[in-house]
Amino acid sequence: MARKDLLDIASLHREEIELLLDQSTSFKKLFTRSVNKVPALGGKSVLMLFYEASTRTHSSFEVAAKRLSADVTNFDIAHSSITKGESVRETVETLQAMRTDYIVVRHGRSGLPGLIARQTKASVINAGDGAHEHPTQALLDAFTIKEKFPDPRGKKVLIIGDILHSRVARSTSTLLQKLGVEVAYLGPGSLVPKYGPATIRRFTDYQAAMAWSPDVVYLLRVQMERQDVQFFPSLREYHRLYGITNDRLAEIQQRGLYIMHPGPVNRGVELCDAVMDYERSLITNQVENGIVIRMAVLDWLTPGGDAPRAEPTFGRSYERSC
Amino acid sequence: MARKDLLDIASLHREEIELLLDQSTSFKKLFTRSVNKVPALGGKSVLMLFYEASTRTHSSFEVAAKRLSADVTNFDIAHSSITKGESVRETVETLQAMRTDYIVVRHGRSGLPGLIARQTKASVINAGDGAHEHPTQALLDAFTIKEKFPDPRGKKVLIIGDILHSRVARSTSTLLQKLGVEVAYLGPGSLVPKYGPATIRRFTDYQAAMAWSPDVVYLLRVQMERQDVQFFPSLREYHRLYGITNDRLAEIQQRGLYIMHPGPVNRGVELCDAVMDYERSLITNQVENGIVIRMAVLDWLTPGGDAPRAEPTFGRSYERSC
Amino acid sequence: MARKDLLDIASLHREEIELLLDQSTSFKKLFTRSVNKVPALGGKSVLMLFYEASTRTHSSFEVAAKRLSADVTNFDIAHSSITKGESVRETVETLQAMRTDYIVVRHGRSGLPGLIARQTKASVINAGDGAHEHPTQALLDAFTIKEKFPDPRGKKVLIIGDILHSRVARSTSTLLQKLGVEVAYLGPGSLVPKYGPATIRRFTDYQAAMAWSPDVVYLLRVQMERQDVQFFPSLREYHRLYGITNDRLAEIQQRGLYIMHPGPVNRGVELCDAVMDYERSLITNQVENGIVIRMAVLDWLTPGGDAPRAEPTFGRSYERSC
Repeated sequence: MARKDLLDIASLHREEIELLLDQSTSFKKLFTRSVNKVPALGGKSVLMLFYEASTRTHSSFEVAAKRLSADVTNFDIAHSSITKGESVRETVETLQAMRTDYIVVRHGRSGLPGLIARQTKASVINAGDGAHEHPTQALLDAFTIKEKFPDPRGKKVLIIGDILHSRVARSTSTLLQKLGVEVAYLGPGSLVPKYGPATIRRFTDYQAAMAWSPDVVYLLRVQMERQDVQFFPSLREYHRLYGITNDRLAEIQQRGLYIMHPGPVNRGVELCDAVMDYERSLITNQVENGIVIRMAVLDWLTPGGDAPRAEPTFGRSYERSC
Repeated sequence: MARKDLLDIASLHREEIELLLDQSTSFKKLFTRSVNKVPALGGKSVLMLFYEASTRTHSSFEVAAKRLSADVTNFDIAHSSITKGESVRETVETLQAMRTDYIVVRHGRSGLPGLIARQTKASVINAGDGAHEHPTQALLDAFTIKEKFPDPRGKKVLIIGDILHSRVARSTSTLLQKLGVEVAYLGPGSLVPKYGPATIRRFTDYQAAMAWSPDVVYLLRVQMERQDVQFFPSLREYHRLYGITNDRLAEIQQRGLYIMHPGPVNRGVELCDAVMDYERSLITNQVENGIVIRMAVLDWLTPGGDAPRAEPTFGRSYERSC
Repeated sequence: MARKDLLDIASLHREEIELLLDQSTSFKKLFTRSVNKVPALGGKSVLMLFYEASTRTHSSFEVAAKRLSADVTNFDIAHSSITKGESVRETVETLQAMRTDYIVVRHGRSGLPGLIARQTKASVINAGDGAHEHPTQALLDAFTIKEKFPDPRGKKVLIIGDILHSRVARSTSTLLQKLGVEVAYLGPGSLVPKYGPATIRRFTDYQAAMAWSPDVVYLLRVQMERQDVQFFPSLREYHRLYGITNDRLAEIQQRGLYIMHPGPVNRGVELCDAVMDYERSLITNQVENGIVIRMAVLDWLTPGGDAPRAEPTFGRSYERSC
């Protein structure tokens, strides 16, 4: 049974996940036969509502939608001084009135795509909301892992970095656990949350984490543009403690481990240059699989249903005099 | 008989207006039957030339054009440092040479779309020029009113705000009068022009205007981004004198009046939050009708004809040494 | 035999040039018969990768691609703070993984499109790289000249301006010479390179250059936005020494010479207002021909082949600690 929205991984059933991964496989096979465009969403409109700039995710969704023959319109909120002053609620009522079929939304505030979804008949896809979730990233990560381990149950994935602030860590580890994958976290103590599922191992020391014998090393991007996060204690020190140095790459290579990263990479921080040429790096596979995953998600969701009135607390006013 | 351009409401004949509104009704019926795309403008190209940013109007035209199967290209003038230095004349000669079929133009200078129209074979649509006109806004307003009052003759519309600087007030009141609607203005004395048709009543006091017994209350957007307009005497004071407060909303509700606003709204200024949930607010209807009106306009206009040479005074030079 | 990429004019064979010009003629004939869209690139995707803003060239490629029925996606690198920090290599690996068919690239660094082309199976088109080449500009220039001189052998083209820093001068003069056209340069001594083919005449004096009896006067754009170039000695002085003043235009008109300019023009610098109305100005012809030339190039190139691994020196790291 299809859903209207894709807001998170937490509420996805195992059957839904399998269905999305299977459909992605079908799209990927079409590509192999050079069938790059299908009429599935002909006549449908997709609106890109990105409150945070994201060249890669934006392009990936746009290419995916166009390959399904949808029309894509960019609601250019970032460059509009007027619309910045408008509440999200008004923006969404505008999009609803335009009868757009799909809204792909990225916003710095956790939970915002869910609020939008409740206001509109359009299918809403969360393309990243604050530190909450990034479900299509998780799906493409799972798809990439399943290409290497068709039965991923019992496989071990070590996620390294700032777990606390990472929507990628949250979504991807939730999804991998649903597929029976074992997950562990490695990072500075202050950035590895103590709460969360007890089934996830926590490490602060690289050697200790490697002794856990992971099959995949998943490097989170260091969000250097986030000025609110003071990096402990410096990028150079981060690289020394948690980055994939040449020495660590040699060990990873010898053990035959896979390396993943959601991109864009900071070379010299999460990893050194040589990782880019490592034959078991799956970083470009992730980008490639992002297209087919997003095609499968768009193809699967079903716009429609009744859009309830907006919640009164959702929005902002210039003045509260009334 | 079709026209090449849509530059203003003033020169539109009653028959043309009826034709555009009828065609919009047809497009809206198609949407109801989930036919969202028609081949009317297949193979045609629409160029968006926005010298002023406008997320909503831009998106509305873009969605309308794509639903007619046209190709839309954004001539990204706002982000081009080079093109900013170029005269409008050169830009238009460039677009003419690219053989674009339609040019949708917004510019801060009154009359500029008309100058452009005389230079190019492309159909030019005025999407707002200075304090002059905004014809598609007027058409969507009239369409929205006719949905509620199929015969609008004798109905009364009260337009509230900065009438003097508003192209919306000018275009919409002109069109409504052509349809036999009675129009009145309400606003600060300095912002309600004394010239203009004598048939329009002028009010500066809210109570006096309500005693005129309007059927529709049309709120203009306060252009807070215009730094040249000093607001009398403050936004809070504006709201107290002319905004729809909770008390005024209660009276409007009791009388069964409709509320309109061209968007985006400034909550707490033109209106208070409760207006957004008022069952006779037509604000989202206006947005929805904007799509079909723009489809009808694009569908109706006929590019072509001879483009005369540019007027020599139209443009600017860096130096006048020659 | 088709090529994968179009990176420069220097390596193009005469037969390839003739083929591209012939194909452009065919597309232009279609336009004359109001056939504005052909299915040649249906289902193919074109990615616009502009590191330098360029409204005209960007729009021209976009319109050309859409007329071939391709899907166009803008990889909005200029507005992405994150992607700016990413190396070009990672960006290109991302595009490669997205299986885009064509990449149109503009970059301030000479040779960069060539480096990108070696990394990807996509067809790469150089839309201007530093002071190196701008091959589609050269092709549209040659096409425009051939429309006036079907056999251009022995015709004379005088290129005026900052030759040294101009990729247009380089590409266009290379192409014209391949077609048997005689080329001369005119400009301030410091901006006319002494190296280069001996067959090209160099002038620093306008009168001396006119005594050479050119058939076409080709004005380069003064790059006023380039702050690294100190203009000798001022724009007004440039105009006096090398600009087309009213007096010079009278002489040009009397001799029946053609005037060309790659646009956008700086009126009062390279030329005075009256040039815009001169009946032998080919400036808008160049813009118009830009569309068909770019259609022909896109139609001619053949994506595919093996993408070799990236060169290790291509990219940048935040730190070099590994």
